[in-house]
Amino acid sequence: MKVIDYRDAAEQTFDGETVKGVTGRIAIGKDDGAGNFCMRVFTVAPDGFTPKHSHEWEHEVFIHSGKGKVLRKGDWQDITSGTALFIPGGEEHQFKNTGDGDLIFICLIPSGAPEL
Amino acid sequence: MKVIDYRDAAEQTFDGETVKGVTGRIAIGKDDGAGNFCMRVFTVAPDGFTPKHSHEWEHEVFIHSGKGKVLRKGDWQDITSGTALFIPGGEEHQFKNTGDGDLIFICLIPSGAPEL
Repeated sequence: MKVIDYRDAAEQTFDGETVKGVTGRIAIGKDDGAGNFCMRVFTVAPDGFTPKHSHEWEHEVFIHSGKGKVLRKGDWQDITSGTALFIPGGEEHQFKNTGDGDLIFICLIPSGAPEL
Repeated sequence: MKVIDYRDAAEQTFDGETVKGVTGRIAIGKDDGAGNFCMRVFTVAPDGFTPKHSHEWEHEVFIHSGKGKVLRKGDWQDITSGTALFIPGGEEHQFKNTGDGDLIFICLIPSGAPEL
């Protein structure tokens, strides 16, 4: 059994034209022997956003804390602590932080997709 | 894309000799078209606990809020908001709430295992 505070996992930051203020961590992945799916934790700073994109694999997301919006079929929908999202493969999506603090969410992907 | 507050998902309560004060909800499952893994959210009331058991499938767990302990190779280890756990298939485990409020965690399983 692996027990880890996600904040102790190695972090990777993402900042550029299409992504702003995002930190990603692999909490549970293939290096842990997780052969079916991978748990990442993302922190989006205030005014930050993830890329607007789509890919063949699905996401299962749980909003841990903070406030934000998700792009869903062209509209921005509110998300907050306790929101769960299923994003099927091939569907365009983007997250942005609209709160004063960090937006923190768990995002799981099937094995075989890039872990981070 | 499915967007749901987990508290709006149907709940099932578990109380008996081996489990106490546990409420489970399927946030994302096969009915949503999630073909690889399933997201459940569990709430354990103060003094409550999950069954001590093992099974062939793995768990990926994220502690959303509250304080508790996990049984890990015979010892009780602290868990709290932000703790991530990987429990490989076949490993005995149990969670208990040791705090004053609810212990709330996300628990993911591969498809094919019982969703709740």
